[in-house]
Amino acid sequence: MIIIVKPEVRRGAPEIQQILDLAARYPGVAARLHVVEGSTRSLMEVYLIGSTEEVPLEPFQELDVVERVVRVSEKYRMIGRHKGQIDYEGFQYQGVTFDQETLHVAPGLCAVDTREHAEQMFAALQDVGITTTRMGAYKPRTSPYDFQGLGKECLPFVFEAAGKYGIRVIAMEITHESHIDEIHTALDAAGSPTGVLLQIGTRNAQNFELLKFVGRQQRFPVLFKRGMGITLEESLNACEYVASEGNSRIILCLRGMKTNLGDPHRNFVDFAHVPVVKRLTRMPVCVDPSHSVGSRARAPDGLSDVQHVTAQGVIAGANMVLVDFHPEPGTALCDGPQALTLDELRPYLEDIAIVREAYEKRRKLARDHASSARGAGA
Amino acid sequence: MIIIVKPEVRRGAPEIQQILDLAARYPGVAARLHVVEGSTRSLMEVYLIGSTEEVPLEPFQELDVVERVVRVSEKYRMIGRHKGQIDYEGFQYQGVTFDQETLHVAPGLCAVDTREHAEQMFAALQDVGITTTRMGAYKPRTSPYDFQGLGKECLPFVFEAAGKYGIRVIAMEITHESHIDEIHTALDAAGSPTGVLLQIGTRNAQNFELLKFVGRQQRFPVLFKRGMGITLEESLNACEYVASEGNSRIILCLRGMKTNLGDPHRNFVDFAHVPVVKRLTRMPVCVDPSHSVGSRARAPDGLSDVQHVTAQGVIAGANMVLVDFHPEPGTALCDGPQALTLDELRPYLEDIAIVREAYEKRRKLARDHASSARGAGA
Amino acid sequence: MIIIVKPEVRRGAPEIQQILDLAARYPGVAARLHVVEGSTRSLMEVYLIGSTEEVPLEPFQELDVVERVVRVSEKYRMIGRHKGQIDYEGFQYQGVTFDQETLHVAPGLCAVDTREHAEQMFAALQDVGITTTRMGAYKPRTSPYDFQGLGKECLPFVFEAAGKYGIRVIAMEITHESHIDEIHTALDAAGSPTGVLLQIGTRNAQNFELLKFVGRQQRFPVLFKRGMGITLEESLNACEYVASEGNSRIILCLRGMKTNLGDPHRNFVDFAHVPVVKRLTRMPVCVDPSHSVGSRARAPDGLSDVQHVTAQGVIAGANMVLVDFHPEPGTALCDGPQALTLDELRPYLEDIAIVREAYEKRRKLARDHASSARGAGA
Amino acid sequence: MIIIVKPEVRRGAPEIQQILDLAARYPGVAARLHVVEGSTRSLMEVYLIGSTEEVPLEPFQELDVVERVVRVSEKYRMIGRHKGQIDYEGFQYQGVTFDQETLHVAPGLCAVDTREHAEQMFAALQDVGITTTRMGAYKPRTSPYDFQGLGKECLPFVFEAAGKYGIRVIAMEITHESHIDEIHTALDAAGSPTGVLLQIGTRNAQNFELLKFVGRQQRFPVLFKRGMGITLEESLNACEYVASEGNSRIILCLRGMKTNLGDPHRNFVDFAHVPVVKRLTRMPVCVDPSHSVGSRARAPDGLSDVQHVTAQGVIAGANMVLVDFHPEPGTALCDGPQALTLDELRPYLEDIAIVREAYEKRRKLARDHASSARGAGA
Repeated sequence: MIIIVKPEVRRGAPEIQQILDLAARYPGVAARLHVVEGSTRSLMEVYLIGSTEEVPLEPFQELDVVERVVRVSEKYRMIGRHKGQIDYEGFQYQGVTFDQETLHVAPGLCAVDTREHAEQMFAALQDVGITTTRMGAYKPRTSPYDFQGLGKECLPFVFEAAGKYGIRVIAMEITHESHIDEIHTALDAAGSPTGVLLQIGTRNAQNFELLKFVGRQQRFPVLFKRGMGITLEESLNACEYVASEGNSRIILCLRGMKTNLGDPHRNFVDFAHVPVVKRLTRMPVCVDPSHSVGSRARAPDGLSDVQHVTAQGVIAGANMVLVDFHPEPGTALCDGPQALTLDELRPYLEDIAIVREAYEKRRKLARDHASSARGAGA
Repeated sequence: MIIIVKPEVRRGAPEIQQILDLAARYPGVAARLHVVEGSTRSLMEVYLIGSTEEVPLEPFQELDVVERVVRVSEKYRMIGRHKGQIDYEGFQYQGVTFDQETLHVAPGLCAVDTREHAEQMFAALQDVGITTTRMGAYKPRTSPYDFQGLGKECLPFVFEAAGKYGIRVIAMEITHESHIDEIHTALDAAGSPTGVLLQIGTRNAQNFELLKFVGRQQRFPVLFKRGMGITLEESLNACEYVASEGNSRIILCLRGMKTNLGDPHRNFVDFAHVPVVKRLTRMPVCVDPSHSVGSRARAPDGLSDVQHVTAQGVIAGANMVLVDFHPEPGTALCDGPQALTLDELRPYLEDIAIVREAYEKRRKLARDHASSARGAGA
Repeated sequence: MIIIVKPEVRRGAPEIQQILDLAARYPGVAARLHVVEGSTRSLMEVYLIGSTEEVPLEPFQELDVVERVVRVSEKYRMIGRHKGQIDYEGFQYQGVTFDQETLHVAPGLCAVDTREHAEQMFAALQDVGITTTRMGAYKPRTSPYDFQGLGKECLPFVFEAAGKYGIRVIAMEITHESHIDEIHTALDAAGSPTGVLLQIGTRNAQNFELLKFVGRQQRFPVLFKRGMGITLEESLNACEYVASEGNSRIILCLRGMKTNLGDPHRNFVDFAHVPVVKRLTRMPVCVDPSHSVGSRARAPDGLSDVQHVTAQGVIAGANMVLVDFHPEPGTALCDGPQALTLDELRPYLEDIAIVREAYEKRRKLARDHASSARGAGA
Repeated sequence: MIIIVKPEVRRGAPEIQQILDLAARYPGVAARLHVVEGSTRSLMEVYLIGSTEEVPLEPFQELDVVERVVRVSEKYRMIGRHKGQIDYEGFQYQGVTFDQETLHVAPGLCAVDTREHAEQMFAALQDVGITTTRMGAYKPRTSPYDFQGLGKECLPFVFEAAGKYGIRVIAMEITHESHIDEIHTALDAAGSPTGVLLQIGTRNAQNFELLKFVGRQQRFPVLFKRGMGITLEESLNACEYVASEGNSRIILCLRGMKTNLGDPHRNFVDFAHVPVVKRLTRMPVCVDPSHSVGSRARAPDGLSDVQHVTAQGVIAGANMVLVDFHPEPGTALCDGPQALTLDELRPYLEDIAIVREAYEKRRKLARDHASSARGAGA
């Protein structure tokens, strides 16, 4: 059950407590306040969790601060789309809007190896006007004997350089709750020159304890990478773990599924799920073409498979692209074969721009058709 | 080993026999003549199959009619791309060019149920200027107790109506070699008003006897649907069965793979393989969004999943789109839930046009970059 | 709907026609007579197929020759287990009983390569008292350039030698309906010294036309190999195609599924489905350990993986084991790496004997428990 | 590289330090001491990890305490079987020997719900002479709104009751490192009446941080459940994470793989991998029939699928069986449908006993054949 608070009510207003107090009267029911700061307005909802079947709607509807009360299905209570809900406007972080309408490209290093490479990467991004990136400090590797990332040692120089080159948001995988503190501390020490999206990798997609940790903190939004061997429904349930702890600033990232039916690609590209995730939930959807494809192979039309699957994500409305670049892919300590070079950055973005423009035309056309159909129906 | 004949040599020229005679001197080697009628020129190649390791190149190179001799890897000998080969220009059928550059949309009935529906479908296509379609007469169904298609009974009216509405090519699944004869006979009886692409369905993707039959005839090109539970390599090997029997006018159709990792879609959409097939082979690539998605679900942007995955195929360079429409999906005897209505045809095509235009821009940009890179290198 | 005929009624009795005539009165309903020759009695059932919802039971029950009338679910009408049905006793062929209680081992050549090897194989079988085998004449291979089997050329010597060494039943894959005739003719020419199980390979598991052909003939029983990339339900539906055409003497063979989750085995061993198939249908269940495992690797306990998965099939009640042997695996033209040598035949059978004895003890124990539970309940 | 210490050298002997000192001279190389307490002797090995290609064998071989030096492949350095290694004898814990030769059955509650149920379970085990069990306190559930286990609250009564009924080892899943401390504390508080196998669930199979934690502590052995959507190789690499941190007392548990090819079973039963894991590594292998099958369905022979797949694990040499029982499955808060009742315990064990006896006969026969073959070869 969702109790939607009137837009004019401010965060922290005493009337909110009224709702919580009322909810507390029903045994077996917990109430969670959910606040989304959108670009034009903020949205407050109180979610009732637990045995809500017996809880009546009326007492809540009668409260002055309440705009509407909605019963929701069991599935994806907090991240899902539910009939009657106020339209979600996404979230803002570091001045960047993440929602189901916009598109951000985040090219960067799969794993930070040297300060020089990080700086070269940032400089290249600044050159083309990009302020979102990826930078891996903690790398979970299949074998314990492979390079595991520089860890917290690299955070100071990464954050400092990010500030220098105007990078606003860095997607950074964490594999343990202590990494949140390390990032927190290093960011503060550097004077918070940039922001971090806490990335949950595919291997931790059902590490529920870690999900609850990132859900309990409010400083950083979360980039959740779909589990590579579980169903989409299970991955969405995992996001629900994050949201149910209080943080619903979550971006879902598709990154390909593990099955040899996708050969010769490294993973079976799953970007056909972009519209599915947007339909089932309110989360922005990211695609990771590099880990999906895993190679630099090129079609006879001159475009690489990485470009083609990026285009497939974008033409279907993806809201973010996480992609591996590296100044010298041959020396990269992790996933070098799939990284693009800095020379390829500008053409890569030009290609995306063509596709994004086409997507926007498609969307406009669909909405025009829909509104003329409604007009005709009236 | 491929012996490429000079372009000025005409089909049936006596010098061709010279090549075959020379090849006949090597034990364990078979020679197969492979002719492709392109739009601007035709291409003749002689393939040597068998123990060709010991066969020298020189005697063939010295023949007057030979332009070049190329040693090829074992894989995909006849359908594959091999270094040194003349660029393939696709094939023409019924005045329509099928190659890796063009795009054709083939909307139609998954299964013909009544003459009226077939005519309504054709009329709608004529309205929007489309001359390629799909029409199922023979339907392989999972259960023997389901509707199995009207079979040869519907061929006369389908072909006659096709002619009436200017349809040039109909993709039609066959499940037994006798269906080729039936189609042949019915087409002739109707005065050959249209053409047929013999479709091999996913369930027969490794029915090698059927593949050899469609390979042995030359009248009809073949639309091969990828096997839904085998690797891409195995599906390409299956196409090689068709080509090795003499018919290399083959279109490869992606239609999604059978694994629950693709849920809630009916199949796991595999259109990221569009550029892969184009790189590995010279076949045009078709996509079947209807069977991949299997529903009419729609994203919040107003576009359906069928539209989104169609766009994903087209933006990556697909050359054909096979898609289910039906005048009354609710009454369809097969796969009704995934069919679009005739009202939706025009918006569907408008949407594709936007995406195709974007693909062409992308391709031009990539080729411009490549040629300026070559220029810079000179 | 199934109409079960009284046991004393003989095949061809005029009263059977009564049932068929009565059924003919209901529009949209087809009647199929289904006869099973068991070892102790034969069973005749008339299956009504089609729109049977409206057909009443009474008029059939009132007929003298009818023992019982049973309404069945839509699923697996002819091969399935249905409440109220007479217990199925399997079928006899060439003096061998195939049912869900017995066990037959069928070691043999994956592909016949020479007469000598076939004879050596048969002699080895005779030595150990085995009369069931496998012999591949028609081999469907992934690549058209691989050895495709000797085809009908080998049939005369295979059948003649089989007779010489007392082989009663040979499982032999066919890939085209014409192979049935070839086998028919060659068997007759040789004086029918042995019998053949028509094997449908995994690549033709949904080649419904071929399934209907083997279903329409009554001379040979069918060994159906599960499709390697489709669900169990789809494979059982495919068997229903055979049965619905009139031949319900079908053995279902598990042979592993195609997914890299089964690595390092060639296929993912699926013998846990032995009890499932026995529960859902009345078919005997065969296992093929050679194609499942695909190697001769051995565990530290001295037993090979082929032996271990064979044991897994047998301990769960498998009724047949199809296994590759070869006098010289190193020279085999097909699947040599997985074949056992003739030296290994006796230990292989000794190992199976231990496991089968354990299975029989398990079954007895379970039935004793069940009957004492029933006794206690009385 | 593995340096095997002579058996007479005692743990903590100063000569061990010699080896470590010598290893320290090579840059980029780390040395890890690995001690296994077997039932008849203990085994000490020093593993050199890192760039060991350049490290010579001789200086180590010349040390008095060294029995042998072995170069190992990169794969599974610490858990793998390597040529030249001393045969591993498993490990002892709480007086129970876990190795690749023995078999232990561990029936128990998937999730502890009440003290009464835990006691009833233990009493039933004592009745039949079983001292190993499973008891879930921390349950990772797909949805955050499902029962998550009683957590540390139940530990005191579980441990106390375990002691009372003579239970020696409890397999207990943990999902966070803090659970180790909680178990540690509760065990100590209860006077250590029993032991715990720390179970890593399939969802945490690649939660490398948790794996490193269980690897760093020495008090509890580890039961690692294979990842349900990754390859066997990846799961074994995950075990290597545990071992590389110092704890190689690991049992690998097969529990079925996530793919609909295994339907109607809950997971695709993967017990054909029992001999594979024994061949590739030195770990004992456990099977979990309950989570693999996920139902109580029964074959016509009277044996349930859970019994059949248990038998399949045991006949192939499994060393442990983890299986769900519950006094009242209908009221279980987690996975009730797959649990067996306490009444079924004795027949379940009788069934296993038959199969285990058969396995022992098979093993003896194989070893007899092998030794007579060696004798013949001499």
